[in-house]
Amino acid sequence: MRASTDRLVHDEDIAIAARFLDHLRDNSLDPPGVSRASFGPGERMAHAHLAERSRAIGLEPSADFAGNLYVTLPGRDPSLPVVMIGSHLDAVPHGGNFDGAAGVAIGLGVLARLCRAGAQPRRGVTLMAIRAEEMSWFPTHYIGSRAAFGLLPAEVLDAVVRFDSGRSLASHIAEEGFDPERIRRGEASLAAPRIHAYIEPHIEQGPVLVDAGIPIGIVSGIRGNLRYRHCTVRGVYGHAGAVPRTARRDAVMAATAFVQALEAYWLARETAGEDFVATVGQFFTDGGQHTITKIPGEVRFTMDIRSEDKAVLMAAHAHFAAKAREIAEARHVSIDLGPYTHAEAAHMDGDLRARLTRLATAHGIPALALPSGGGHDCATFANQGVPSAMVFVRNDKGSHNPDEAMETADLAQALRLVAALVDEIAF
Amino acid sequence: MRASTDRLVHDEDIAIAARFLDHLRDNSLDPPGVSRASFGPGERMAHAHLAERSRAIGLEPSADFAGNLYVTLPGRDPSLPVVMIGSHLDAVPHGGNFDGAAGVAIGLGVLARLCRAGAQPRRGVTLMAIRAEEMSWFPTHYIGSRAAFGLLPAEVLDAVVRFDSGRSLASHIAEEGFDPERIRRGEASLAAPRIHAYIEPHIEQGPVLVDAGIPIGIVSGIRGNLRYRHCTVRGVYGHAGAVPRTARRDAVMAATAFVQALEAYWLARETAGEDFVATVGQFFTDGGQHTITKIPGEVRFTMDIRSEDKAVLMAAHAHFAAKAREIAEARHVSIDLGPYTHAEAAHMDGDLRARLTRLATAHGIPALALPSGGGHDCATFANQGVPSAMVFVRNDKGSHNPDEAMETADLAQALRLVAALVDEIAF
Repeated sequence: MRASTDRLVHDEDIAIAARFLDHLRDNSLDPPGVSRASFGPGERMAHAHLAERSRAIGLEPSADFAGNLYVTLPGRDPSLPVVMIGSHLDAVPHGGNFDGAAGVAIGLGVLARLCRAGAQPRRGVTLMAIRAEEMSWFPTHYIGSRAAFGLLPAEVLDAVVRFDSGRSLASHIAEEGFDPERIRRGEASLAAPRIHAYIEPHIEQGPVLVDAGIPIGIVSGIRGNLRYRHCTVRGVYGHAGAVPRTARRDAVMAATAFVQALEAYWLARETAGEDFVATVGQFFTDGGQHTITKIPGEVRFTMDIRSEDKAVLMAAHAHFAAKAREIAEARHVSIDLGPYTHAEAAHMDGDLRARLTRLATAHGIPALALPSGGGHDCATFANQGVPSAMVFVRNDKGSHNPDEAMETADLAQALRLVAALVDEIAF
Repeated sequence: MRASTDRLVHDEDIAIAARFLDHLRDNSLDPPGVSRASFGPGERMAHAHLAERSRAIGLEPSADFAGNLYVTLPGRDPSLPVVMIGSHLDAVPHGGNFDGAAGVAIGLGVLARLCRAGAQPRRGVTLMAIRAEEMSWFPTHYIGSRAAFGLLPAEVLDAVVRFDSGRSLASHIAEEGFDPERIRRGEASLAAPRIHAYIEPHIEQGPVLVDAGIPIGIVSGIRGNLRYRHCTVRGVYGHAGAVPRTARRDAVMAATAFVQALEAYWLARETAGEDFVATVGQFFTDGGQHTITKIPGEVRFTMDIRSEDKAVLMAAHAHFAAKAREIAEARHVSIDLGPYTHAEAAHMDGDLRARLTRLATAHGIPALALPSGGGHDCATFANQGVPSAMVFVRNDKGSHNPDEAMETADLAQALRLVAALVDEIAF
């Protein structure tokens, strides 16, 4: 099937996507936003509603042992790898309605359009609603997509607990009627060779599209990150008036010098044309000991650095370790950056990106290339070798907060673009 | 009386001072240190013990309406203004035994020496044990000495509460048997013209004497301060990966830039030969909102700057206000340094300082001139026009902590120096 007037996206397809989002919002309100707990009531409601809406357009959904839901329009040739559209339905506590769910809504709209038109693609087209993507419930990444590929480490099932219940991931998975033991054994419901392409539509989490006045982003890559949760500067507490500067071992002066050095390094990366962002999200003196009249003896801070390029991250790590030693020595304090975690960057498929760029132009949809600063299940697929792409939808006020603001007109543009891509690669 | 062999300080005088400190410590233990609440049990015990020890050397103590205790060896000419030695007996929670009390102990040793020798000075010599100097109990400065001069604002009595009880200063003063109404009316128990000189011995609260290997400090002046308790930087929270640098309004980056600018200004003051120290004792992102993956939208910090020279403080204030505006504008955040309090610097009397310097040399007591970085009741006396001096005693590990370490040998040197000064100016 090629794009043709009789099978263009109709208002009805857009309405199906929009009504899906409305239903989710109305049934997961938790003022000032919505909450949809991973493997909890909100996510359960959303998966049940997707199952119901899928049947309404004539497709039968099925869940895997980890609770991921698949809605497939079968292809004419079942031996061919399928085209997948995927995203997640959980939402952070008191967050926005669109992060994750907008991608599933777009996939539902694409399937509704194909069903309405009675289309029969060569390849199957599968919408996947992925479980437990938001780290705020269980502090580990990509639970659903990693479990689907048999990649979720067994120990995570018991060691990781949901912040609100204190109970393990395994316990919550079992409670929802799924089978943690199959995850533990490393069983897989997905295999990379059986997936022709994976497309994840998502609201943009930053201001780039809003600032540029452009509705659609075509993601160049997903930034990897290094996260340092336990950076510590230790000096010596002392009298704020009575200790001369050179005798001080001031943790705040040392830590602020380090943060400013980090920013200087960032500016140098920009000048060199390298992709890099850095955030010190937490920075605090010890509430039990600090006072206005005491030289601060301790600072703790976090550091999150991201790049599409692993080599940039590794060079930054080496630089910061050396800079910490240098500042510590000069200022007679200790600076310990502590352990860090590394999430791999993911490359978006060049062919899919080129197709999206061309199709956007062809359909008169303004689009911009930009990196994804946040992690997404798409990284799991890309790093398993599945040709993968992400389409961002313009969204004001960022994500993970109740002020998320995506316009339905922009959702419709994304739906048109993804539908056009599916037309090209599934038929 | 001039210093002569028969009236030199004896071991017994030193022992009286040392035993006084031992008794205070043994009766106010609050591991890991001592606690002597202002207008509370610890201070009450210390005042009672001083009264008892005063009677033991033959002097009758008396308290004023604010609870300050006076022990006077009458002079031959009651019309002459007296020589006073003063310090406080309260101690911060879990603090050290010597801050404040060492000065009273030295005064007690000086009186014991004069009584033992049957000396009859021309001027009266008065030891004053001052109430409530430590701001950790009631967050306002110089309660006892300001009340003695009739200078404590009436509203402080009701508005300031003790941190542990939540009850007002007036209530605690009344509970100890003193009369807050006389403070409220501005009555005075001291008058500057009736004080010939005020001498406050105190442990050093910084490391200067320890680092220099010198037991005694002769204070050049008491630094005044400007205190900013509520500095706030407000930016915008955002996604740590998805917002480009130039679109960020990062409160930590702005606040660390400000602190580093403050340090640079400090270095410039040193180069210019100006007395200046600065401390950012508290610095924290919002614990309710900050995470490792969020651009920080708010930082709060404190700033305490001190100088012996008021003009230096005022110039610094203007500089920091301008710097805050500059950084806020460049980084698209707001920086509000908030309200500040100003404690006046106090000048030490030139004649008394010259006498102390000469007497130290004459008696073979190594001594060093240095500023007092901390505030002391001495500032109240000096700013009332009383010729005032402070003598610092070498003390390792700072003050306001259980690790204060003053050697009795150094206490004895201070006792000898103060006794020599009293010999010069009271006889």
